[in-house]
Amino acid sequence: MRIRVINPNTTASMTTTIGEAASRIAAPGTEIVATTPKSGPVSIESHFDEAISAVGMLEEVMAGEREGADAYIIACFGDPGLLAARELTRAPVIGIAEAAFHMASLISTRFSIVTTLGRTGIIAEHLLDQYGFRHHCRRVRAAEIPVLDLEDDGEAALTRIIEECRRARDEDGIGAIVLGCGGMADLTGEISDAVGLPVAEGVTAAVKLSEALVGLGLGTSKVGDLAFPRPKAFTGRFEHLSHMPPRT
Amino acid sequence: MRIRVINPNTTASMTTTIGEAASRIAAPGTEIVATTPKSGPVSIESHFDEAISAVGMLEEVMAGEREGADAYIIACFGDPGLLAARELTRAPVIGIAEAAFHMASLISTRFSIVTTLGRTGIIAEHLLDQYGFRHHCRRVRAAEIPVLDLEDDGEAALTRIIEECRRARDEDGIGAIVLGCGGMADLTGEISDAVGLPVAEGVTAAVKLSEALVGLGLGTSKVGDLAFPRPKAFTGRFEHLSHMPPRT
Amino acid sequence: MRIRVINPNTTASMTTTIGEAASRIAAPGTEIVATTPKSGPVSIESHFDEAISAVGMLEEVMAGEREGADAYIIACFGDPGLLAARELTRAPVIGIAEAAFHMASLISTRFSIVTTLGRTGIIAEHLLDQYGFRHHCRRVRAAEIPVLDLEDDGEAALTRIIEECRRARDEDGIGAIVLGCGGMADLTGEISDAVGLPVAEGVTAAVKLSEALVGLGLGTSKVGDLAFPRPKAFTGRFEHLSHMPPRT
Amino acid sequence: MRIRVINPNTTASMTTTIGEAASRIAAPGTEIVATTPKSGPVSIESHFDEAISAVGMLEEVMAGEREGADAYIIACFGDPGLLAARELTRAPVIGIAEAAFHMASLISTRFSIVTTLGRTGIIAEHLLDQYGFRHHCRRVRAAEIPVLDLEDDGEAALTRIIEECRRARDEDGIGAIVLGCGGMADLTGEISDAVGLPVAEGVTAAVKLSEALVGLGLGTSKVGDLAFPRPKAFTGRFEHLSHMPPRT
Amino acid sequence: MRIRVINPNTTASMTTTIGEAASRIAAPGTEIVATTPKSGPVSIESHFDEAISAVGMLEEVMAGEREGADAYIIACFGDPGLLAARELTRAPVIGIAEAAFHMASLISTRFSIVTTLGRTGIIAEHLLDQYGFRHHCRRVRAAEIPVLDLEDDGEAALTRIIEECRRARDEDGIGAIVLGCGGMADLTGEISDAVGLPVAEGVTAAVKLSEALVGLGLGTSKVGDLAFPRPKAFTGRFEHLSHMPPRT
Amino acid sequence: MRIRVINPNTTASMTTTIGEAASRIAAPGTEIVATTPKSGPVSIESHFDEAISAVGMLEEVMAGEREGADAYIIACFGDPGLLAARELTRAPVIGIAEAAFHMASLISTRFSIVTTLGRTGIIAEHLLDQYGFRHHCRRVRAAEIPVLDLEDDGEAALTRIIEECRRARDEDGIGAIVLGCGGMADLTGEISDAVGLPVAEGVTAAVKLSEALVGLGLGTSKVGDLAFPRPKAFTGRFEHLSHMPPRT
Repeated sequence: MRIRVINPNTTASMTTTIGEAASRIAAPGTEIVATTPKSGPVSIESHFDEAISAVGMLEEVMAGEREGADAYIIACFGDPGLLAARELTRAPVIGIAEAAFHMASLISTRFSIVTTLGRTGIIAEHLLDQYGFRHHCRRVRAAEIPVLDLEDDGEAALTRIIEECRRARDEDGIGAIVLGCGGMADLTGEISDAVGLPVAEGVTAAVKLSEALVGLGLGTSKVGDLAFPRPKAFTGRFEHLSHMPPRT
Repeated sequence: MRIRVINPNTTASMTTTIGEAASRIAAPGTEIVATTPKSGPVSIESHFDEAISAVGMLEEVMAGEREGADAYIIACFGDPGLLAARELTRAPVIGIAEAAFHMASLISTRFSIVTTLGRTGIIAEHLLDQYGFRHHCRRVRAAEIPVLDLEDDGEAALTRIIEECRRARDEDGIGAIVLGCGGMADLTGEISDAVGLPVAEGVTAAVKLSEALVGLGLGTSKVGDLAFPRPKAFTGRFEHLSHMPPRT
Repeated sequence: MRIRVINPNTTASMTTTIGEAASRIAAPGTEIVATTPKSGPVSIESHFDEAISAVGMLEEVMAGEREGADAYIIACFGDPGLLAARELTRAPVIGIAEAAFHMASLISTRFSIVTTLGRTGIIAEHLLDQYGFRHHCRRVRAAEIPVLDLEDDGEAALTRIIEECRRARDEDGIGAIVLGCGGMADLTGEISDAVGLPVAEGVTAAVKLSEALVGLGLGTSKVGDLAFPRPKAFTGRFEHLSHMPPRT
Repeated sequence: MRIRVINPNTTASMTTTIGEAASRIAAPGTEIVATTPKSGPVSIESHFDEAISAVGMLEEVMAGEREGADAYIIACFGDPGLLAARELTRAPVIGIAEAAFHMASLISTRFSIVTTLGRTGIIAEHLLDQYGFRHHCRRVRAAEIPVLDLEDDGEAALTRIIEECRRARDEDGIGAIVLGCGGMADLTGEISDAVGLPVAEGVTAAVKLSEALVGLGLGTSKVGDLAFPRPKAFTGRFEHLSHMPPRT
Repeated sequence: MRIRVINPNTTASMTTTIGEAASRIAAPGTEIVATTPKSGPVSIESHFDEAISAVGMLEEVMAGEREGADAYIIACFGDPGLLAARELTRAPVIGIAEAAFHMASLISTRFSIVTTLGRTGIIAEHLLDQYGFRHHCRRVRAAEIPVLDLEDDGEAALTRIIEECRRARDEDGIGAIVLGCGGMADLTGEISDAVGLPVAEGVTAAVKLSEALVGLGLGTSKVGDLAFPRPKAFTGRFEHLSHMPPRT
Repeated sequence: MRIRVINPNTTASMTTTIGEAASRIAAPGTEIVATTPKSGPVSIESHFDEAISAVGMLEEVMAGEREGADAYIIACFGDPGLLAARELTRAPVIGIAEAAFHMASLISTRFSIVTTLGRTGIIAEHLLDQYGFRHHCRRVRAAEIPVLDLEDDGEAALTRIIEECRRARDEDGIGAIVLGCGGMADLTGEISDAVGLPVAEGVTAAVKLSEALVGLGLGTSKVGDLAFPRPKAFTGRFEHLSHMPPRT
């Protein structure tokens, strides 16, 4: 099976990090195709960055439909464009925030999230509400690291993340930690060792959830609100999206 | 004061309908600038349409910042890109779904929504949850009319909407109805007369809420998650969004 | 249009403060009639004070119906008697707590309330629950000032309110503050300047929401639980309320 | 011990009905003092009726404090003025709606409410929310009987209540029924026999909860928001409430 | 009437403590039969202990059905096996956690729980959610005392419990405290005196709630999910549970 | 890896059905060990059956710890004893209800449950609440089939399940169905084909989630409330559980 792992930001080195973490965790026989959108922000740290990134991410799903994919992963912790992506395909589409929440809730009764910038905390809160994990999460914490520092100044970033995870462990009454950024995909082991708690990370979790759904023969429901979008005209820079052949 | 009313879809005739409804309700001294994005879907009937439309909508906010605007309205019932838009400006930004919910909750204890297509109902449900109006809304109903039928076959559409509104009145135990599509902005009076219930409609409600906030000197908070986005590079078709001058 | 602003307590100087704040914010053409009930507590600082104050407030609504009013404002942060008042009129009736919550939620994703006495915090909590804003509010804080200190020892009161607002800003992760007392209606600007956050205040917010609803032609729904009360006998000191002519 | 059962409406025959039901259920040694306020509505069927009735009810609590009472019951299903009444005394104060909810939740996992008029259903819904029983209640139903019909046309009223209770039993998936009006206090046995479900009724439930709390030595907490109200001036018709001696 | 008070753990001295506390509070005419299961853990401090203890507790209910009982109390704060026990009898069955929550919510608007070990806090949280008291409880606190220390080192345990209760009083903004262990049944008065807050304790509360329900003629509903279990075969060590005679 | 699939009831033919369904879906390299407790009910159709079955299930986990297991599945839709089981092991433990909910929520925005007997619906409701999926589930439906009819009269049972699933599809506005009984593990394909909706079934879902967690190196957190139980004495028939060696 082939999983298309879409890094919604356009920083290729982060796509590499994410792709490698995905490949390491993938089952034999699972091919990871890690892709970077052609257009979009170099990092996603705001509602605005999220909204813009969704377009490139969706085009990567459409590319996957042409090139063949058995599942898709949206590798940004805000799960930007998740429901839109699901409309485009019969394959499963997994966001890394939801993936980490699901996994953390299966191994602990309460977890905390450690993310990058405090301003993105509200995005996690909205997702916890929508997905149903509000009460499983004790606290959304931020290490106050810009996303690209994970690439550019990894050591310092790791130190601060571990510090914040330790505070979560000591103050929040939790059993597990959720890492709140796709760029942390390669840090899970190190953090877990340093903190002494299980750490749920979204990219790796999403790979295994994708394999699980494909193994079950389950894909995105095409009945109801996740059915293929009604074909229609798009104008201007999005004209190429017009009149997608109707699929049912 | 000048309110920029952004119709996130690219059907100019619907922008006209919306703009006229906004102008009719606007206070003396309020200038309505109704705009259509250069790029995007001709109607918004899915999560996918919403995600794409957000880009053109956000560019209209940026245009408003250059041309001057005291408030912004996002005239699609899913409030696509609302929080992203708020990050771009100190002015208030109002979505028409939230506007209608707020107004309906002030004149009744329970309301129902009558929207276009059933598949968009989940979008309304997610907004009710996020905004806090879940328990004020008894039921989300659909007349099962494609959005553009409101433009193309208005009489038939109106008949079906009124029928569904009457079912809501008779079955749901409500005091008011919320119309679930920007394209219904000119139908409020006719529907309210036919149904015998107050009808909250989002475009008109958003105009008055915008005037209210501007009158109060209240704009989008620039502290916390709605602060201006951190300037950064965008690539490809979104390169023009790069390095917006930092604003604080 | 004429808005009847009812201060449910019987301290005339506070009615003047409230009326002046309302007049300053009112649109041209909006007449503010600020009234004090003939009977009731001089300040409202408990469930008991609220219950008693509701009677005088409701009589002021009835007076407004006789004298003419296009909207009513209940200018006490507990919104005492709000649903009862709505039953008495086709005009909109706005409580200042709800008004402030609505406005704060349109300019920020999370706010805190700063009120007078801690013992009234539960009133705000119950309103947040009933109106749907529980999750928008991070924390209900009290400056521990008796209400009438706002009139009698304004400088000291202002200092303590500002201190508590700063703590809210620094500790709560919020984008806006809601002031939790009608007697603070004239302090908004000063507090916002001192704290560096948008401040939503109920009296002024309610004036603009009233103008908005009247502008929309929306009044209290007379279908369902907010319909006019069934006429009936009242005894004793409330005999004058008997057999109000049936209205439909 | 002496329980003061306050019928918040001023229909003496209903007070008698309520008092007799309370006496029948009371333990040996429990004295029931059933009282009617001097002033107020003859029945309570709206938010307005509730607000007015609260005053007479609170004065009956104050009379109870003078005359001696070990517990108070507010015998109207909307629990009008409940928290205000609690502020006035160290004794327990029980509303009949809450009493019925508590008891029903102890003998079944889900119940439905059958009340008088549909327009009062929202009052029950708000109480379910505030008390925490929203999910225990499947449905709020109304027999559409004016309250005084329970006194004036008891047979017909009973027939309609039983019909609605049977519908609840057959359609709602419940284990118990809550009767939603103090005036039904003497009908419990007949309804339960006719419907074949346990029936929780508030007046009788409140008597036993009062006995329980007194037996436990538990009274209303005087720490926090239910402490005695701060003494202060009241004006006009409520001047007699001024300067209640401070109690702690 | 006879109440069978079942201590689900097998420490006889704790059963004695519980039985004596129950007897002291019981009304004249109420007989307390305090029982210890033949099999089970000596204390209940984990989900595992709870699950095992449920069997012995249920057998005590079956014994009660043979020997005669008018009500049952499950005297462990996690209310282990509560719904299962209700299936076995027409009598009321009360858990001590629910009993304490109900009572505390009738005398205060907010309470905190002080329990033994922090690891059992999640059990209390799940019960608060299921019963509907989540928002009435500000905080679940632990004195970090093993349950049997209440028996073996009572003085030291009491000191730590009082310390934690005082922290709750000073930090949580509450009006009452809920004691979170059946083994504290005899400490209520001392703690309340030391802390200056009403203290709701489950064993005593459950006795009075049992008396209340029996007095009302209310027992566990046999309609719906609490009906008698369908008779069936059990194997192995549970063969004696097979083919219980069908009861309806 | 080896997954121990525990059928908590003692009907060996159902264990076979479950084990075969698990084996068919398992990845190469995954060994399924399907086990039946030595003691317990032949089917689980009540809170009582659940409580008793938990003991045998837990002993199967303890057996797994001795014999070696990388993950455990509790193959009854009420997830009996789930948190207790988690305390006994570092391996992941998955309940089939939670597994099905997780999977259904990843491929649809709303699902309905179709279970066996209506009286078990409340068990599903409580789990939906505890796990956070209340709003993802539109309705809990029952085919009103005793569990063992799935073994004894499979054709008739299947027909009724499909009928109920079709009603769910036509009336509930859903995108997927959750099958509410472990005994339906082999029916997924047939039902999905007949109904035209994706069908999430718990046994198969739990196998893939177990593989996912093991692949991620994630096991039950041993920090906090899921830590190994404190060793202690058990009496009577449970004496063999005494003094389990402390593990950390």
